[in-house]
Amino acid sequence: MTFIYNDPKQFPAEALAGFIAANERYVEAVHGGVVRSTTSPEGEVALVIGGGSGHYPAFPGWVGPGMAHGCVCGNIFASPSQSQVTAVSQAADNGGGVLLMYGNYAGDVLHFGKAASIMRADGLDVREVQISDDVASGIPEKHRERRGIAGDLFVVKVTGGAIAAGYNLDEAERIGWHANDSTRTLGVAFTGCTLPGSGDPLFTVPDGKFALGLGIHGEPGISEHEHATADELATLLVDGVLAEEPERREGGYSGRVTVIVNGLGGVKYEEMFVLYHAVSSILAERGLEVVAPVVGEQVTSLDMAGVSLTVAFLDEELEKFWLSGADTPAFRTGNVENQQRRERPVAEAHAVELSAGTPESAAQAERIAVVFTAFADAAIAAEADLGKLDSIAGDGDHGQGMTLGSVAARDAVRRALSAKAGAASLVDSAGKAWSEGAGGTSGALWGDAICQAASHLDDGGAVSAEILGAAVVDAARNVARDGGAVVGDKTMVDATEPFADALEKELAEGVGLKDAWTRAAEVARQAAEATSELAARKGRAKTHGDASLGHPDPGAVSFALLMAAAAEAL
Amino acid sequence: MTFIYNDPKQFPAEALAGFIAANERYVEAVHGGVVRSTTSPEGEVALVIGGGSGHYPAFPGWVGPGMAHGCVCGNIFASPSQSQVTAVSQAADNGGGVLLMYGNYAGDVLHFGKAASIMRADGLDVREVQISDDVASGIPEKHRERRGIAGDLFVVKVTGGAIAAGYNLDEAERIGWHANDSTRTLGVAFTGCTLPGSGDPLFTVPDGKFALGLGIHGEPGISEHEHATADELATLLVDGVLAEEPERREGGYSGRVTVIVNGLGGVKYEEMFVLYHAVSSILAERGLEVVAPVVGEQVTSLDMAGVSLTVAFLDEELEKFWLSGADTPAFRTGNVENQQRRERPVAEAHAVELSAGTPESAAQAERIAVVFTAFADAAIAAEADLGKLDSIAGDGDHGQGMTLGSVAARDAVRRALSAKAGAASLVDSAGKAWSEGAGGTSGALWGDAICQAASHLDDGGAVSAEILGAAVVDAARNVARDGGAVVGDKTMVDATEPFADALEKELAEGVGLKDAWTRAAEVARQAAEATSELAARKGRAKTHGDASLGHPDPGAVSFALLMAAAAEAL
Repeated sequence: MTFIYNDPKQFPAEALAGFIAANERYVEAVHGGVVRSTTSPEGEVALVIGGGSGHYPAFPGWVGPGMAHGCVCGNIFASPSQSQVTAVSQAADNGGGVLLMYGNYAGDVLHFGKAASIMRADGLDVREVQISDDVASGIPEKHRERRGIAGDLFVVKVTGGAIAAGYNLDEAERIGWHANDSTRTLGVAFTGCTLPGSGDPLFTVPDGKFALGLGIHGEPGISEHEHATADELATLLVDGVLAEEPERREGGYSGRVTVIVNGLGGVKYEEMFVLYHAVSSILAERGLEVVAPVVGEQVTSLDMAGVSLTVAFLDEELEKFWLSGADTPAFRTGNVENQQRRERPVAEAHAVELSAGTPESAAQAERIAVVFTAFADAAIAAEADLGKLDSIAGDGDHGQGMTLGSVAARDAVRRALSAKAGAASLVDSAGKAWSEGAGGTSGALWGDAICQAASHLDDGGAVSAEILGAAVVDAARNVARDGGAVVGDKTMVDATEPFADALEKELAEGVGLKDAWTRAAEVARQAAEATSELAARKGRAKTHGDASLGHPDPGAVSFALLMAAAAEAL
Repeated sequence: MTFIYNDPKQFPAEALAGFIAANERYVEAVHGGVVRSTTSPEGEVALVIGGGSGHYPAFPGWVGPGMAHGCVCGNIFASPSQSQVTAVSQAADNGGGVLLMYGNYAGDVLHFGKAASIMRADGLDVREVQISDDVASGIPEKHRERRGIAGDLFVVKVTGGAIAAGYNLDEAERIGWHANDSTRTLGVAFTGCTLPGSGDPLFTVPDGKFALGLGIHGEPGISEHEHATADELATLLVDGVLAEEPERREGGYSGRVTVIVNGLGGVKYEEMFVLYHAVSSILAERGLEVVAPVVGEQVTSLDMAGVSLTVAFLDEELEKFWLSGADTPAFRTGNVENQQRRERPVAEAHAVELSAGTPESAAQAERIAVVFTAFADAAIAAEADLGKLDSIAGDGDHGQGMTLGSVAARDAVRRALSAKAGAASLVDSAGKAWSEGAGGTSGALWGDAICQAASHLDDGGAVSAEILGAAVVDAARNVARDGGAVVGDKTMVDATEPFADALEKELAEGVGLKDAWTRAAEVARQAAEATSELAARKGRAKTHGDASLGHPDPGAVSFALLMAAAAEAL
């Protein structure tokens, strides 16, 4: 349960604002997240971390001397957007290049990756390390394809320590991967977690049982078990991570490890210590020596009751930087030199430039604006249903993401209208606002699609009905081009492609935009409803697991809903 | 709920052991709790904190440079015993006196107070500060009669900082009270909390409501309220604590405060930040400047969902020591000088000098050694039963104390045998090891009695059977002389005096030592069983409350058991 909130939609933003207010000596706000409020040496590599919210202390709690230089903060359990990653990275840059470090999740890989490409094209040297410590999410041979959980702390700490000691970008990237390759985590969950404002948990674990290997957003685990004692649990977890212990050898890993017992939110500190008591005995029996272990909440999952065990296999280099000084809101160790506060706050993010349009274009902009109002109204009305649908196999944030994105776009459109912006500028600002506001994969796809539509418009005059129609078709087609999915993958594309095909055909036959759009929206609705059946027939479901079979894809459903609402509003 | 445990009865002990294992660089175990594992300057005041368990990080999480020197750890929500307080204080003492600091609860006041009296009688300068920051538990005019909650963090931090800066015992006591008088806290609870192994919460709050002013063990609050937004909650809490804001004045409190938003266990970090976001705005509106606020879990109440707001009204002195460096398992700020690890664990601090004896004395030492092996075997076998008996009215640690003491004595005897020590040295080393190993009152009484027996022996030769018998009688009599109790007080003395009388009589009648001891042990057994009846007849039970009537005194029972085992081994 969430007990303390105002408007649930504002929860992540207010939590971030409160975090910043409480930690001014460490961090300051920038668009999309935070950067250190203290100075860093000129030329030092900037370590930029981040991911969805709901995992505090991960990730903003680790920004400060000896650890990260900046953190990009997405919505609850949702990747931050490309523009957020870019804004934080640019603010954190000290002239030594940027190392992006984040958990290996599809949404994060997409957005951080896009941001990296854009910044590289801009001349900034940007590298990426995806953390993948969770042994439950893949086979040992493909360690780097697993997802990242509590091992994040170790990888970020070691890399931040190395950078503080003067490592350049090549060396920082190398030790980041090395730390990740040396870290293994396995966790269990006793209960699910509940999003702010929701009465129902995102997922559940039957009473008296526990799920082994559950992810930090309720991703499916390996197996479900009957109640175990603390000692049995310790054995299970130690066996799981030590199955991948590297060979001990001179001059490398020699049996020295560090250990993180991480609470996911709903277990007590005393329970974590009872578990550590058992874990430390077993490790000693197996001849391992534990260096500076950490027991507490490091990577949480809202109020989920669960615990994970991380073991990092140390060599001299890893141990040195695990023990080096760090001073951040949530992780402090050793001593760091007194830090100087920055003289001026880092620059505000670039506001979108709005060019005033000609009267003709501004008039067309006003007619287009109704579409965005309709999008927002429809998304708000469908939010709860979409959330439920998404929680069957995903992380339950799709409804919220659609509302955040469409409301941000609607508000941008209102600002554009007051500025008497042209149609191209108005739609472009709406697309950018959607990406920013929603975050997550679908946020980026919607935002990019809308910007794609804008590229057909003109601030210098009204475009013809044909061009307008082509803009909508192209925007829908952009989703498949952008995201790389094809029809049958059980994604939004299952609806966007049929919609584009139908709209194109109707328009070619001379049907007016409103009627053509209405019919295409109906095609999209039927396609969305058939996503599950189609995926089952094709034997694949790209973004979701088998649990979602029998239910339509939430992204396809929301696309069809919004298309129908827009057609009606035209 | 508690999810991770073995035997619920062992939960607090295992949690403490796990805490110590995870924090060896900060703390080491002593009887009844922990002390720093790092050195402190000779003559520095020792700040000893403590209370019941279930509140982590309070209280053991705050032991380390810049904060406390030792922590006494009671069972879940139960005050530690006098003997635990005494043992931790003696181990923490640096020669500069001891300041005991704890929350103002009846049980803590009783046990810490008793320990203080005993230590004072022993020549140690001991002072006490009871923390009482909870505005919900009493009227403003009687601030020092309220109970202590999350303000503990501020009071302990400031006092520990002042001691690290060189404050003597008078000054440390003064600033402790001053910090307490400057601190106000008010909390709310949304749910109750559940003891390990129990399926039912200790108390409940109706769904959708919250209780204002609830204590950290479920003590009644002021009032029950309907759901409030985070902003409304912030206003309620700020109003509650600022109602007692002192007047602002030159050279004193000038509107600078520190703030602690404390989670009780079951609320998420993100919720605490949402609340702090609102709190910080209100405080700014009211012209207050916040210095180094803390948002997180500091004084928890197992898994209770609740939150409290602490405001400490700062003057220059308080602000200085709030900001000074501290390095403890759960609270770290600023920089502290690199700490030296103690060279030897405290338990071995006073290693006993072993003089080699003559062959005659060494041979007698070997015969005596069997008694100590018998003691240890008997104590280990009886540990669980003694623990249960003690838990009826005491703190359940008597079985553990007897095992720790007798095993330490047995091990010392083994070392003495390898050193070919004489009989006097061997027995003396056993007595000293027992006191150290067991801690507590009964540990001290056993240790002193054994050393008393040693004073009759001789490293220069074997003593006669008469002298050996007299040594045992005198050792038993020493318990009453040493502890000040008399027969009928329901203590160990109820068994030691009848034992001494019977042994003396049998020996005087010419009975051999083994037979005389056997008969005296039987007398002791009967006397131990009768302790409850005797105490009831005499209308008093010195060390335990009425709850123990109907059950024999654990100290008397264990004495009789060990005497029987020794007689059999002779």
